[in-house]
Amino acid sequence: MKSLIQIFLVSALLTTCINVNAMTASPQSWWVGMQTNSLQIMLHKQNVAKHQWQLMPYSGVNLHNIIKTDNPNYAFLNLEISPSAKPGTLVFNSAAGGRFEYSLNARKANSSKRRGFDSSDTLYLINPDRFANGDSTNDSVKGMLEAANPIERGGRHGGDIQGVIDALPYLQKLGVTQLWLTPPLENNMPSYSYHGYAITDFYKIDSRMGSNALYRELAAKAKQHGIGLVMDLVLNHFGSEHVWMKDKPTADWINFNGDFANGKHATSHARQTIQDPHASDFDKRQFSDGWFVATMPDLNQRQPLLANYLIQNAIWWIEYADLSGIRVDTYSYSDKAFLANWTKAIMTEYPQFNIVGEEWTSNPAIASYWQAGKVNNDGYTSSLPSVMDFSLQESLIQALNEDESWNTGWVKVYQSIANDFLYPNPDNLLVFADNHDMSRVYTQLKQDLAKTKMAMTLLLTTRGIAQMYYGTEVLLDNTGSNDHGDIRIDFPGGFKGQKSNAFTGQGLTIDQRDMLQTISTLLNFRKQSAALSQGKLTHFSPKDGVYSYARTSEKQTVLVFLNKHAEMKSWPLHYMEEVLGSQIHATELFTQQTVNLNKAVTLPAMSAVVLVIE
Amino acid sequence: MKSLIQIFLVSALLTTCINVNAMTASPQSWWVGMQTNSLQIMLHKQNVAKHQWQLMPYSGVNLHNIIKTDNPNYAFLNLEISPSAKPGTLVFNSAAGGRFEYSLNARKANSSKRRGFDSSDTLYLINPDRFANGDSTNDSVKGMLEAANPIERGGRHGGDIQGVIDALPYLQKLGVTQLWLTPPLENNMPSYSYHGYAITDFYKIDSRMGSNALYRELAAKAKQHGIGLVMDLVLNHFGSEHVWMKDKPTADWINFNGDFANGKHATSHARQTIQDPHASDFDKRQFSDGWFVATMPDLNQRQPLLANYLIQNAIWWIEYADLSGIRVDTYSYSDKAFLANWTKAIMTEYPQFNIVGEEWTSNPAIASYWQAGKVNNDGYTSSLPSVMDFSLQESLIQALNEDESWNTGWVKVYQSIANDFLYPNPDNLLVFADNHDMSRVYTQLKQDLAKTKMAMTLLLTTRGIAQMYYGTEVLLDNTGSNDHGDIRIDFPGGFKGQKSNAFTGQGLTIDQRDMLQTISTLLNFRKQSAALSQGKLTHFSPKDGVYSYARTSEKQTVLVFLNKHAEMKSWPLHYMEEVLGSQIHATELFTQQTVNLNKAVTLPAMSAVVLVIE
Repeated sequence: MKSLIQIFLVSALLTTCINVNAMTASPQSWWVGMQTNSLQIMLHKQNVAKHQWQLMPYSGVNLHNIIKTDNPNYAFLNLEISPSAKPGTLVFNSAAGGRFEYSLNARKANSSKRRGFDSSDTLYLINPDRFANGDSTNDSVKGMLEAANPIERGGRHGGDIQGVIDALPYLQKLGVTQLWLTPPLENNMPSYSYHGYAITDFYKIDSRMGSNALYRELAAKAKQHGIGLVMDLVLNHFGSEHVWMKDKPTADWINFNGDFANGKHATSHARQTIQDPHASDFDKRQFSDGWFVATMPDLNQRQPLLANYLIQNAIWWIEYADLSGIRVDTYSYSDKAFLANWTKAIMTEYPQFNIVGEEWTSNPAIASYWQAGKVNNDGYTSSLPSVMDFSLQESLIQALNEDESWNTGWVKVYQSIANDFLYPNPDNLLVFADNHDMSRVYTQLKQDLAKTKMAMTLLLTTRGIAQMYYGTEVLLDNTGSNDHGDIRIDFPGGFKGQKSNAFTGQGLTIDQRDMLQTISTLLNFRKQSAALSQGKLTHFSPKDGVYSYARTSEKQTVLVFLNKHAEMKSWPLHYMEEVLGSQIHATELFTQQTVNLNKAVTLPAMSAVVLVIE
Repeated sequence: MKSLIQIFLVSALLTTCINVNAMTASPQSWWVGMQTNSLQIMLHKQNVAKHQWQLMPYSGVNLHNIIKTDNPNYAFLNLEISPSAKPGTLVFNSAAGGRFEYSLNARKANSSKRRGFDSSDTLYLINPDRFANGDSTNDSVKGMLEAANPIERGGRHGGDIQGVIDALPYLQKLGVTQLWLTPPLENNMPSYSYHGYAITDFYKIDSRMGSNALYRELAAKAKQHGIGLVMDLVLNHFGSEHVWMKDKPTADWINFNGDFANGKHATSHARQTIQDPHASDFDKRQFSDGWFVATMPDLNQRQPLLANYLIQNAIWWIEYADLSGIRVDTYSYSDKAFLANWTKAIMTEYPQFNIVGEEWTSNPAIASYWQAGKVNNDGYTSSLPSVMDFSLQESLIQALNEDESWNTGWVKVYQSIANDFLYPNPDNLLVFADNHDMSRVYTQLKQDLAKTKMAMTLLLTTRGIAQMYYGTEVLLDNTGSNDHGDIRIDFPGGFKGQKSNAFTGQGLTIDQRDMLQTISTLLNFRKQSAALSQGKLTHFSPKDGVYSYARTSEKQTVLVFLNKHAEMKSWPLHYMEEVLGSQIHATELFTQQTVNLNKAVTLPAMSAVVLVIE
């Protein structure tokens, strides 16, 4: 089975005297009519650099030069593809009798004008191994180092891309508009490979998840359900079972000479060194070049051949799978000059695309450094449209778990959002209550349904691009364990032998049904609300346990009141005069009751009230 | 006694038919040769606006116009004083037969070139009522609403300016280079008046503290001891017993129409509204115009006559008392456009001066907004040279009280200082472990001498302008009470009947002597250390409970190691290679022992090691 997939993936094949199966060309295909005319193909095979490759005449395509490195097993062919070039097959010959073909494809119509996810969207984050097993035949795949083991929390549970495809009607009905899957690329590691962040082939969907073709099918089918597909890419590191560890393309491909040195070369995680005027050179290097763990060697993106490789890899997946966005793992850990080039290359190719970087810090002065448009002290210019709002995530959990006082409770959320002046574009912040790397929101909020509903109401109505983690709608929970395997718990209904099924509703508790209804109401309202998509946010200093704000667009105003008080409140609205228009009536989202805005509004204890004025 | 002082203060006196004692002119004198040619004199007396004041001919001085307001008891004379005008006495006559004289004085030589306090300095903060009673005759003053009551923690204890003058030899020996006294201006309030922030006369030293002349004498004598004088000014509010409350210069002189409304018009303290793009107009006004308390009405600095009054008041005190700096209370609570004008006016007059604003926030993105040179989103331009580093204060206490882990302990200090990229000039941050508004550092550190020594070593060796609170050198303590009166405890030796005396050393405990020696060593070293004054700071990510950094100037390098570990450490220095020069020996500051830099350095448990390389 492996060899069939290999043949599928490597469309560049040697057909004569050189061993066909052993040579790879990356990327394996390309397109005509791209914004950038250059293409660099990495060839890998024993002594491939000793061959004198020539391109057979092809109108509009020119083999500019071939770069060789200190390793004769790699060669980099630099092609120029003129805007006039037509789709077809390039043929390369070598003096030694080698030959391979390379496809230049036609692009999808308007591919360059694709719109990325934006503030009208809700991203639904899935660990595909843990969401739904749509194809039990690929749970274990011969030749892959790790087989399925559904009862092991760090093992592979068998979820796959087919499972996500099968769930599309459910996701559409829930109100999801974008899917973010943790990396589906091959992680052929001996253990703990289900999470996807130890990539062993940047051009291949893991065979236990499906195939490149199936991933492309997911994107196409999701689109039919009004849902976009966001790919999770890793630029900083890769899996230690990747061929690059055994056969480095260049001596400087991997940081710290490819040596973890028993943790001496571990990253310090000290991202503050990027901007700190007092940072030592020692700490700067330790942060950026240090490895996460021994099984995830750290890539040296200062190496221009590697930089090109990673840029082309991202563009290849956007074009191949018709993506609507990219999420970048451990963003700031990569070389920052490279990140500027990488984001610029993608955004030049797709000006309306979106990419969100993970910068795990509650300090918005650090996170905002990376957002496109930020004027930084050091002149650093980024083209990254979106960053994750970890500050709001932390503040939201604190706010709901703390008692109210002048400096605890809702004021934390108010202060966090008030820091938006640091961001060039706060509407492009990804807001979330949890993700695959932290305890689930229901767990963080100590299994309090009312608080969880308030948290999700806030996230789905404040500024920014909303993100929710799969299963939040049915209160998935990891109370008692912080193990990532328990956080990434099997979605009910996705696997055989489960007691409940979120897809059908069978076996769900009353609380789960309540949450499912709340999320569905919010997501479906969000999908068509101009105020939530683009409306201006005006928020008010929290008072008496109530945080309140307005989203105002031309024709719609949404008022949100989050009452943490243990008792019902009768809440006058004079202080909101500046956001109340001439309308005197509003409709409450969850109850659909009409509310008179000239009178005090009733805020039930521990709950969210959402008033829609149209 | 009061009338004599009144005569001294009001050098502008009516001498004929208008009731002399009842009229005040503010400022009461001015100078020729100022950068700004204009002067606005506020006259206050019943129906003073009905007089037609004329200036008798005086070369180079011109009465441009007279501004009248909605209150006939005030008139504002706008004068133009040309650069050629000579010192002398202006004479004003009114058609109704009024007459008063006004002094134009000569400036001190090089007054405009005075240098403000800077990063070579240590400011010693004193509550003068609680430091030393140098003149028991003024403890209670007839006609002043509050008399001395030394046993009442919120009462007046009798400390005064003479007490500070008498302590100058002690302060010089300790190594202090600047004195910051909490406001010595008149606070003629019925109770709780000792703190000084409820000013009832902006041009008069409180008679229980001394007199304007004695304050000027303090500045002159301090200078002879190598010590500058910093005045604490309040721009945001004033004492409710001020004549302005009974007789407002204009209807809009006081915010919220001069009405606290039982707290409805209290400030929200929500300083984040200044930059928050989502802040409501309601909250912006509530923050800026709201009052602190009923006894401190909030000034409306948007009123241009008041703005002028406050600008001239500051310049008057700099020039009159020969100040080396100003500290501004509750900085951001004043109107921000006014603050820009106020700081610009002062810094234009004295380009090398220093002013430090109190912005009580641990968020450096908020504090840095106010520092001169900051490029703000909204285009706001400030001329304020210095702000207080509350972030470091909080972090330092947390760091020392917490156990070490990846996100607790020293990393808090490291992260706080790493945020310096937000400040245009981190060397102009005022760094401190405590002040008069919070528990004393020894209390915050739970009476741990070793931690208190580490805290003070850090503050006196890192970047910035150092500030210490009086009595830290003898471990003053408010354990068991957060009452401000207990924080502002009587300095030992300053008052009769005390058991110990810090000035003489009599009765001090071993720990107090240890602390006194440590502070004295640090302060006196700091006074002459180029590395600590201007040296570049390079700090290293904390490791194993040790935070370390270097200050490097051309001829001197200082290495600081703060070991929170409960055990002695043998500490190799390879990681510091970039800051170690060719010298192989250093001298440890506290022990004066020679240390070989090629070997691991011994760091005793829970202590600071300071290595000086020259």
